Amino acid sequence: MGENHWTTEITKIEPNKIVVRGYRIDQLMGKYSFPQVIYLILKGELPDERTGKIIDAILVSSVDHGATPPSTLAARTIASTGSPLNAALAGGILAIYKYHGGAIENAMRQFKEIVEGGKDVRQWVEEKLKNKQIIYGFGHRYHKNDPRTARLFQMAEELGFAGEYVRAAREVASAIEEIKGKRLPVNVDGAIAAILCELEFPPELGNAFFIMARTPGLIAHIYEEQTRMKPMRKIDPVDHEYVGPPEKDLT
Amino acid sequence: MGENHWTTEITKIEPNKIVVRGYRIDQLMGKYSFPQVIYLILKGELPDERTGKIIDAILVSSVDHGATPPSTLAARTIASTGSPLNAALAGGILAIYKYHGGAIENAMRQFKEIVEGGKDVRQWVEEKLKNKQIIYGFGHRYHKNDPRTARLFQMAEELGFAGEYVRAAREVASAIEEIKGKRLPVNVDGAIAAILCELEFPPELGNAFFIMARTPGLIAHIYEEQTRMKPMRKIDPVDHEYVGPPEKDLT
Amino acid sequence: MGENHWTTEITKIEPNKIVVRGYRIDQLMGKYSFPQVIYLILKGELPDERTGKIIDAILVSSVDHGATPPSTLAARTIASTGSPLNAALAGGILAIYKYHGGAIENAMRQFKEIVEGGKDVRQWVEEKLKNKQIIYGFGHRYHKNDPRTARLFQMAEELGFAGEYVRAAREVASAIEEIKGKRLPVNVDGAIAAILCELEFPPELGNAFFIMARTPGLIAHIYEEQTRMKPMRKIDPVDHEYVGPPEKDLT
Amino acid sequence: MGENHWTTEITKIEPNKIVVRGYRIDQLMGKYSFPQVIYLILKGELPDERTGKIIDAILVSSVDHGATPPSTLAARTIASTGSPLNAALAGGILAIYKYHGGAIENAMRQFKEIVEGGKDVRQWVEEKLKNKQIIYGFGHRYHKNDPRTARLFQMAEELGFAGEYVRAAREVASAIEEIKGKRLPVNVDGAIAAILCELEFPPELGNAFFIMARTPGLIAHIYEEQTRMKPMRKIDPVDHEYVGPPEKDLT
Repeated sequence: MGENHWTTEITKIEPNKIVVRGYRIDQLMGKYSFPQVIYLILKGELPDERTGKIIDAILVSSVDHGATPPSTLAARTIASTGSPLNAALAGGILAIYKYHGGAIENAMRQFKEIVEGGKDVRQWVEEKLKNKQIIYGFGHRYHKNDPRTARLFQMAEELGFAGEYVRAAREVASAIEEIKGKRLPVNVDGAIAAILCELEFPPELGNAFFIMARTPGLIAHIYEEQTRMKPMRKIDPVDHEYVGPPEKDLT
Repeated sequence: MGENHWTTEITKIEPNKIVVRGYRIDQLMGKYSFPQVIYLILKGELPDERTGKIIDAILVSSVDHGATPPSTLAARTIASTGSPLNAALAGGILAIYKYHGGAIENAMRQFKEIVEGGKDVRQWVEEKLKNKQIIYGFGHRYHKNDPRTARLFQMAEELGFAGEYVRAAREVASAIEEIKGKRLPVNVDGAIAAILCELEFPPELGNAFFIMARTPGLIAHIYEEQTRMKPMRKIDPVDHEYVGPPEKDLT
Repeated sequence: MGENHWTTEITKIEPNKIVVRGYRIDQLMGKYSFPQVIYLILKGELPDERTGKIIDAILVSSVDHGATPPSTLAARTIASTGSPLNAALAGGILAIYKYHGGAIENAMRQFKEIVEGGKDVRQWVEEKLKNKQIIYGFGHRYHKNDPRTARLFQMAEELGFAGEYVRAAREVASAIEEIKGKRLPVNVDGAIAAILCELEFPPELGNAFFIMARTPGLIAHIYEEQTRMKPMRKIDPVDHEYVGPPEKDLT
Repeated sequence: MGENHWTTEITKIEPNKIVVRGYRIDQLMGKYSFPQVIYLILKGELPDERTGKIIDAILVSSVDHGATPPSTLAARTIASTGSPLNAALAGGILAIYKYHGGAIENAMRQFKEIVEGGKDVRQWVEEKLKNKQIIYGFGHRYHKNDPRTARLFQMAEELGFAGEYVRAAREVASAIEEIKGKRLPVNVDGAIAAILCELEFPPELGNAFFIMARTPGLIAHIYEEQTRMKPMRKIDPVDHEYVGPPEKDLT
């Protein structure tokens, strides 16, 4: 044991044994879902099934948002130079920060401030607006009624996660509408933030959920760029069109 | 429609609607699991439940491997300088290449060569050994009987994915043992490779599955580095120890 | 000295002493230029003054190429999300590969093949064209007479670096023109490649010179994006315009 | 001119013409040094010769610091997985942040606060120490008398850059020694910071100078890792040794 000896609480490796937070990976496989294992590795405890289901829904909700987000454009731009998939993905992830994905962390801090600080929501919103501070997690430049928010909150209710943070998120939206006379509903970032608060995740991991969710989407875009597109093309951020399979109804 | 107009087959975005490969995200949520949606976004079709289960198991199998892999050390080293989580994660992903994670892609190519080329396995192995070419996906410097391989192949059998690629993987291992007189069993990369072939994924996405699986593990290490460790510490790649929760039995 | 003990031939660090390839940094400062020190650290020997001058010219030649290269667009896209300068720069560098900057390495291999293999240039070009192989380092989609090539070759002559590799580059251009009846002059990548061969750099470092040269340019674009642009803007790769200081003549 | 039309003040590209901040690159080559062109592209004006010389010295001073810095270890770790040079370099640059290289930016802010705010240095230091705030740019865990600082300040004097920021840096060091009774001399970050203030660079570019300087050093380490080391080796951050050319004296 040298002077730079260090310890970790995540994973124990022994010959023929990999033990994550106390559980053998081969025993987790098939018994606990990947979203449950994400909870386990980040929080240190095995979650119940409904926790796995809500995390699964969060990940599905943010798996992709078409060709316009900066993470997608950065990843495609890098892929178009012949760079390997992991490099293009790394570039995409470097674009998931402050203004793109970052609202989850900030919204979590706000909801915690309101709930844990016992704030009056209306007063809190008034103060924010008066001080011209951003209220994170509300409104979307494209979606007026984000279907992902509605579905996330519906599932949160069914699975028993619509507690005080989800209530706070909804109350903030109502207060904004009352005060400004303009609807700025909870967006998908705000909904994810409220639910991650319910699950007692630290705000510092908010961004991480967005990244885990978006990684398969970025990979799909990189692979499409590598296989269907000409190298070094000028990637227009607006002038593109969806030509994939037609819409099918799952209901 | 300008001269740089382009098309994508992945996701259609309309106001209040996000449609991935023909399916509305809010309809997928709660009905299809994240591993199923990963299949959908990468392959373009909705998979059945058993496909979702085997992908889930692949992702769980590779979620982490302790503090020694280069991706983990690169991510922790970057995190220790105060860099944000997404930057440390990007650095970790840059280390998932050729010699680390890259064996999945190479093993997929080999299994496809054997199965689709109708090769005699014993002869194929003999030739590889004679030409001193690497056979990817066999043996592990640490695990003699990788529990993840056994569990993956067991689940592949139960779920109906133990087809000709899985058979080829096992036959290669037997042939190596017979010819060299030394056991080099299928490792976790080889097992994942064989199953991804069964699922008809292209080899170019082999590495991507490893990255999707390992992302939560890297995030756990980065978060631990940020919250439990001194900045700028000298991160010894060997002299570390697991001090997390004791092992529990899930059987 | 443990079992992972390792050695390096680059820099010795002792209290109050930093010695690069045998030379104290404080003694190098002011006596040898940064381009000379680049040569020193990459090749292991101190170069003469004319070597420093030609490397300086190579670095200046590629310091920037406006807003269209993929490295610039990737870096700006990442910067526009609020990511820090080093992250945006890393993303830009990830886009300097195969099709962007990568021609230097490939052209170096070609010139070495011709010169060291004693090839007949006309025959070599004919074979390349017959086999529809790319000849790297010739022609430019924008510049018909790249002023950087002319200046680099002029300086190479003045400084005594217009040897057999520079001759090979020029002869390849002549042969292409004769055979195809179309001018595809040496481009800046080809000129840099020929000169780096004269300086006996390995082709594996060709890309590195482009990266070292372009780093200040990328930083200028990132800083402009951070200070003059709206976050999360849609960065059009074509519809932009130079509005900086008017052209001045240095002759 | 579409709705996403944008402007840049950096580089104008026309057929056969590349004009950086108003100057043709081919006219700059050979006439202005790379360090001068760095000043030009970042500040928008051509500097005189002495400015080029001091920037050159800054770049040489930080070209490398052996195998221990986190940027070097991250770059080598990534290179050891077979990742290409640009990816390993990007990973290294991701580690140049807050605690590694970041002191330059913070020290610049401090010196500007003192000089532009007309602060009494002794009082300013006392307050910092009383409030247990970090004073950036002073002391080094390894070098008690950093030879790079001495040489930088000597050159600053000779070239006429030892103005009020350099004076402030020295006065802070004296004040710390007087108050704490312990020598914490200006380190290389502090010296670079003071000189960049003299050159009127914004603090936001402090980190950038460190990155530009260190890029060749990182490339040397990556290339050594790729050519002299075994892939996937365990890279010990302490147990390494310099075995390059013996020290030579340039005086």
